[in-house]
Amino acid sequence: MQLLTEIRIAGFGGQGVILAAAVIGKAAAIFQGGYATMTQSFGPEARGGSSSAQVILSTEPILYPYVTQPDILVVMSQEASTRFVPQLKPGGILITEQEMVRVDKYPNGVRVYGVPATRLAEELGRKVVLNIVMVGFFGAVTNLLDPDSLRKAVADSVPPAMQKLNLQAFDKGFEYGVKLMEKLAVAAEIEETVSLESA
Amino acid sequence: MQLLTEIRIAGFGGQGVILAAAVIGKAAAIFQGGYATMTQSFGPEARGGSSSAQVILSTEPILYPYVTQPDILVVMSQEASTRFVPQLKPGGILITEQEMVRVDKYPNGVRVYGVPATRLAEELGRKVVLNIVMVGFFGAVTNLLDPDSLRKAVADSVPPAMQKLNLQAFDKGFEYGVKLMEKLAVAAEIEETVSLESA
Repeated sequence: MQLLTEIRIAGFGGQGVILAAAVIGKAAAIFQGGYATMTQSFGPEARGGSSSAQVILSTEPILYPYVTQPDILVVMSQEASTRFVPQLKPGGILITEQEMVRVDKYPNGVRVYGVPATRLAEELGRKVVLNIVMVGFFGAVTNLLDPDSLRKAVADSVPPAMQKLNLQAFDKGFEYGVKLMEKLAVAAEIEETVSLESA
Repeated sequence: MQLLTEIRIAGFGGQGVILAAAVIGKAAAIFQGGYATMTQSFGPEARGGSSSAQVILSTEPILYPYVTQPDILVVMSQEASTRFVPQLKPGGILITEQEMVRVDKYPNGVRVYGVPATRLAEELGRKVVLNIVMVGFFGAVTNLLDPDSLRKAVADSVPPAMQKLNLQAFDKGFEYGVKLMEKLAVAAEIEETVSLESA
């Protein structure tokens, strides 16, 4: 975990944005000995059906819990993407629900990772766990938190009857992310070989 | 609603502190046209099993979402009371789960209102709704938010299958609060009469 990492998670109401944020905060603080805050704003934008939460993870107590320019942005709706992508830190990480979001303009040097979270959740028979699929994917591509801490935080954040389903959702997102990162590593290697050959 | 009201809700894990805070924030912002933030901190204290959330209600957008000295403190555990009562604003409102909390020292001029929320929730057959009983009681004694906004926020914050139970819990806490306030008004009148007679 870095000294301070700012994360924003955004989507529309009903996608479980707040729970996803709370799981990440809990993983960092309770199961990994750090500090975290989760802030949810209710205001005109919430009345419009969108939902957004800010999470700060830190190795020290957090004095100011507001995210200004996130290091990591997770977006699950087009509206959230349009609104928050311009605020992403140059060189930051953008994670999208890839069938919901099309991003045209990125800040400089942003790395983008997409996952069909809704479809993966539907494969488990319950679309509502798309948020936890996103959390699993987040875990794999950011490598910011110990996957075991995230899994424990998932189990700890849902009712007992929903634990199995949510852990499956987590694993599904996580595995999708691991495979994607492997593919990207191979692609980078090929690219390097090609550029060496053409040099 | 005042220009800015700072609220802290605290108890132990499993009492639904965060949901209670989110309901109050939502009532203010979504159903009453104001602004609200809810901040949850995860840290050493969360690892100890306690849970605490900060809510700010405002008629204007909120720039700094951290509560320093709450106007209203809701405590559902002795530990939360010991920790947070000294921070309450002089003249503020303290709301307690009265069978869980014994408060010995108050800041100057604090008004204290107790409710047996756990017992009232048990009368509905589900102890878990004690948090929503507290929200109902909060609504009645603070008179800060429109009861209808609070009721809508309750319905909006729980799964459909749990709405009826949670609305009953809200009403139970609210009615208990209304009766308490009536009793206190009568007591104040008697006291006034007595002091006039003795004068």
